[in-house]
Amino acid sequence: MRAPAICAQLEATLPIMPLPAHAVLGDGQFLIDGSFGIELKGYVDSRLMSGERRFLDTLSRETGIPLSGAAQSPSASFTIVTAGASEPVEQLGENESYRLEISATHVRLTAANPLGTLHGLQTFLQLVRVTPQGFAVPAVTINDQPRFPWRGLMIDVGRHFIPVSAIERNLDGMEAVKLNVFHWHLSDDQGFRVESKLFPLLQEKGSGGHYYTQKQLAEVIEYARERGIRVVPEFDMPCHTNSWLVGYPQLGSRESPYQPANHFGVLDAAMDPTQESTYQFIDQFLGEMTPLFPDDYFHIGGDECNGKEWDINPRISEFMRAHELKNNAALQSYFTARVQKLVAAHNKIMEGWDEVLQPDTPQDVVIQSWRGEKSLAAAARQGNRGLLSTGYYINLNKPAAEHYLVDPLGGECAPLTPEQKARVLGGEATMWSEYATPENIDNRIWPRAAAIAERLWSPQEVRDVPSMYQRLAVLSQKLEYYGLQHESSTRLMLQRMSGESDPRALEILAAAVQPPEGYVRERLKKYSTDTPLNRLVDAVPPESETARRFNDLAKLIAEGKASARQWQEARNWLVLWRDNDAKLQPLLERSELTAELIPVSHELSQVAATGLEALDDLENHRAASAASLRKNRKLLQAAAKPQAVLLDMVAPSVGLLVEASALHSSRLRE
Amino acid sequence: MRAPAICAQLEATLPIMPLPAHAVLGDGQFLIDGSFGIELKGYVDSRLMSGERRFLDTLSRETGIPLSGAAQSPSASFTIVTAGASEPVEQLGENESYRLEISATHVRLTAANPLGTLHGLQTFLQLVRVTPQGFAVPAVTINDQPRFPWRGLMIDVGRHFIPVSAIERNLDGMEAVKLNVFHWHLSDDQGFRVESKLFPLLQEKGSGGHYYTQKQLAEVIEYARERGIRVVPEFDMPCHTNSWLVGYPQLGSRESPYQPANHFGVLDAAMDPTQESTYQFIDQFLGEMTPLFPDDYFHIGGDECNGKEWDINPRISEFMRAHELKNNAALQSYFTARVQKLVAAHNKIMEGWDEVLQPDTPQDVVIQSWRGEKSLAAAARQGNRGLLSTGYYINLNKPAAEHYLVDPLGGECAPLTPEQKARVLGGEATMWSEYATPENIDNRIWPRAAAIAERLWSPQEVRDVPSMYQRLAVLSQKLEYYGLQHESSTRLMLQRMSGESDPRALEILAAAVQPPEGYVRERLKKYSTDTPLNRLVDAVPPESETARRFNDLAKLIAEGKASARQWQEARNWLVLWRDNDAKLQPLLERSELTAELIPVSHELSQVAATGLEALDDLENHRAASAASLRKNRKLLQAAAKPQAVLLDMVAPSVGLLVEASALHSSRLRE
Repeated sequence: MRAPAICAQLEATLPIMPLPAHAVLGDGQFLIDGSFGIELKGYVDSRLMSGERRFLDTLSRETGIPLSGAAQSPSASFTIVTAGASEPVEQLGENESYRLEISATHVRLTAANPLGTLHGLQTFLQLVRVTPQGFAVPAVTINDQPRFPWRGLMIDVGRHFIPVSAIERNLDGMEAVKLNVFHWHLSDDQGFRVESKLFPLLQEKGSGGHYYTQKQLAEVIEYARERGIRVVPEFDMPCHTNSWLVGYPQLGSRESPYQPANHFGVLDAAMDPTQESTYQFIDQFLGEMTPLFPDDYFHIGGDECNGKEWDINPRISEFMRAHELKNNAALQSYFTARVQKLVAAHNKIMEGWDEVLQPDTPQDVVIQSWRGEKSLAAAARQGNRGLLSTGYYINLNKPAAEHYLVDPLGGECAPLTPEQKARVLGGEATMWSEYATPENIDNRIWPRAAAIAERLWSPQEVRDVPSMYQRLAVLSQKLEYYGLQHESSTRLMLQRMSGESDPRALEILAAAVQPPEGYVRERLKKYSTDTPLNRLVDAVPPESETARRFNDLAKLIAEGKASARQWQEARNWLVLWRDNDAKLQPLLERSELTAELIPVSHELSQVAATGLEALDDLENHRAASAASLRKNRKLLQAAAKPQAVLLDMVAPSVGLLVEASALHSSRLRE
Repeated sequence: MRAPAICAQLEATLPIMPLPAHAVLGDGQFLIDGSFGIELKGYVDSRLMSGERRFLDTLSRETGIPLSGAAQSPSASFTIVTAGASEPVEQLGENESYRLEISATHVRLTAANPLGTLHGLQTFLQLVRVTPQGFAVPAVTINDQPRFPWRGLMIDVGRHFIPVSAIERNLDGMEAVKLNVFHWHLSDDQGFRVESKLFPLLQEKGSGGHYYTQKQLAEVIEYARERGIRVVPEFDMPCHTNSWLVGYPQLGSRESPYQPANHFGVLDAAMDPTQESTYQFIDQFLGEMTPLFPDDYFHIGGDECNGKEWDINPRISEFMRAHELKNNAALQSYFTARVQKLVAAHNKIMEGWDEVLQPDTPQDVVIQSWRGEKSLAAAARQGNRGLLSTGYYINLNKPAAEHYLVDPLGGECAPLTPEQKARVLGGEATMWSEYATPENIDNRIWPRAAAIAERLWSPQEVRDVPSMYQRLAVLSQKLEYYGLQHESSTRLMLQRMSGESDPRALEILAAAVQPPEGYVRERLKKYSTDTPLNRLVDAVPPESETARRFNDLAKLIAEGKASARQWQEARNWLVLWRDNDAKLQPLLERSELTAELIPVSHELSQVAATGLEALDDLENHRAASAASLRKNRKLLQAAAKPQAVLLDMVAPSVGLLVEASALHSSRLRE
């Protein structure tokens, strides 16, 4: 049955993400015009019907063709056959497969249940492109199914609140790339984001007024279900709980009252695991919360306890001695075990971060690995199921390629037995929100999360990075039609910070810089939840496509493999950057938000000039003088340091050119 | 009390629309940062509180500064004092004045009622700009009130349905520029857009599934009220009623059944004014509809009856003879008089288009003038109140300046007595939707509607066109923060039609063309409600700012008044246009939607090259040869004709340069 592995030609012809498991190209293309119509056959329910309506709305936005009469059309050219119902509440591992057959005259989508049908519709939408004949999809037969059953995106709404509208946009994005678990990180030190009727001080004192009502939770869960997405809530405990303790200090481990936290990092606040009242509270809390979230799984966090409040509380020390708990890890383990029983009593399967895995952790607890693949392998060996988030921290501004090449069954998990491997359920992209707001969260998540979605859906051997980037660019544009604002918000933010309605010169600078990777940002500037995130570092995407493309050119030139056209393209970029500074400088001074960019723009111009010199040297087989080489290396070294919390992404590529010309000149000297 | 008339300096310093009635600049500026807070004093109600929340949300979007703690702040720097309540349902002529005092340290907004407060908040938002010190508003004292009490925007949702989300965006835009009447044209030949429970076939057979539920109507009305906007519904009758007659043919004037209409123009369909059952239907219909719309005014249309169905129905001819109705106008007048009584019986004041004005029209009927100011003057003389829409047809793609200079008390109304002038209530911009969809309607309406808003609000002597355009550009950018998509949607549409994620070359062409003005479009191509509106003509704004600016440059150069910098700017534009074609051509062929632009782009390039030649001639005081002059004039003549339903807006400006150089060469010859 399996078609010959997805080959390069197919990847180019099917610019979709994630790539399907099997695909065979046909002849010709299926045209989309005003006569387009759909017929739903077999099993039909309200989710399928609203899925059909949403599909037509999106297709209409993708093409600009009115399709209001296309639903349940009698002479339909698109037939959908769904065999039966899905589970009332979406289950882990439920069948998600579909078959999509597109010929020049007809489309037939078949699936075992509505989940598969919804996925097939998304594949079709991604295939739509404009051609000389009009909008069309290529003739192709696709048999598709996911590699992993748990393909998630976590959004932290604790550190910065993300309102329902932004959550829903991102659920649309998840549907597009077949992610099927929305992990909602609902509480953290800086904010408790859910309305509790039983314990109203949680939101009243812990949210600064920014929380979801129970009605909104239900709305989002329904919105997700319509899109084939499970919603797994997380209430992080016993640490990351400062926001709970402001309203309910009796839950905490220290005597003095707790204040709302607006700073980031690992805080000391911790629940008191030694008091029976803590477990009574959690039991009642779970009694209120678990019915609100229909999914089988319930995440209780468990990460990053520094234990400081436990250490200084004599009553807690005494308890640990009495119960022979050797250290804080053992104390947390005691807490986790008790909470696990409560979660189970409320008919949920517990999930937790790495730290909850202990030798005696019950086998149905799911481990989310964030500190390294080691814990995932350990969980699988111990009989627990787990998922990978190590390597999928999209808040760390790493390139899509880096996430893409992380495999849940790679690294430490590669040597697992088949039985152990089956316990690896998949993975989750995690979006922590220290530097995210409703305005820029889309560009923090998209399009890079799609690379992770492909890793979790497509066959393991799909790992061609250039193909991934090529398809990612196509998808990125489509996602704006699906309602995401990852591209348009950048422009609005540049307009705002510059006061310019056409911020072209600032856009040129913006496309050449990136926020620093990893945890560098907090070392460069002090941030709190009140810090406005309205500067260039907040507006630019975490990965500059322009810089990546220029880097490819620079590599080819340095290796002597570039075509004349590529030489010219590199030169054009460098001229653009060199000359942009003169246009930009007078604008930058006018705004407090852009004044810090004055040296950034100036340096980019110098770097570009250096790159042009190196190009000239290379082209003319001319030796650069040792003095100029020294000067240029010094400049590039300086340019490699962040300024205005931004990295010049052109400098490393110019470095390649300079070193190539240095090599050349040393050869000349030999 | 009146400050010296708004002077040019003030207009530049206060880039807001509409300009306030009185303003005096102070010293310094008020900075907006995280310490910003508001205190509501005096009268407070839920509308004021939600107005405060919306204000803070918008201010936060305008600045990127979190302001969630700024409401009802104890140490507030912004004090709002509202004296008393507004009317439970907004009344025509209700007090809308406010006073806004901004110093370097404090803001004080005072108003008689929440309506004035809401207006003052919008003025403040428009004053926000980024400065070297951060976001700030200038110190100023504004005393403001409208010139006319009826400042409307009509949206036709009959020809193309416009969903609630798009209506709400446009209500946000209306609030920003202090328009206070949303005239909702709810039915037309192509669609009946309201759910009737009494006569469900109206929406079931007349809407193609696209109508507002009664719950949605209530939502929109509440949304509008929150923004100080009245909602006046229009159900057009007895003509423009094809959509009614599909479901209820017994209301019609012909025997054979009615089919849904998807074409535009003046259709024959007409209610039968001779049957008692028609009035019974209307009476019941009004009985259902009038309670849904709380406003005092109710618009029954009455425009464009061609009378053809009346002419051919012998029963109607007989009725006319029996009742001594000389012609169809008299028959319509009979109909209008009966409907007016029904409207009045349902406690509404009737409004209608020009045609409802007859010698015996009751004096409380409000006349909306669309065929010329003459009917407005006639209404005022006859004792009726009226409003102007002639000159405010924003669907006709005319420049903002043209609308701006039309005054409800100018032209035929100028000679009216003060008493008669008082009957002129204001005006309404009208957005007919033959070529509008939810996607492009924002750019059809905005920013040009703001010029009309200023005409209706600001003192009559505010009519400086360059100042208007300068401020319109600033406002246009802000409107995107308020949620409108008039700029961003253009970019999305260009991406879609070209399949390019960075459609820069197409944007350059797009900025140089415009849809033709007036009713030319229907003569160039056949359109129906099913025609996709996804081509360049649908995407570009009706007025090209680029072309307008280039035209200003060309005029200055032709008049010999241009600076060296202006010469250079003109040259840069022409080079850009000349060279763009080579980049664009290979892209245009790839898409069926852009293939028609191949000659448009080519011609722009030729026109630009001609402009460059003329610039060279002018600069070098060189005579163009008679032959080249002939060739160039011929080229420009050809370029003046629409192609792909688009006008090259650069050609007329290049014409100025060519003629200037011709003049020069003829001088040389003399």
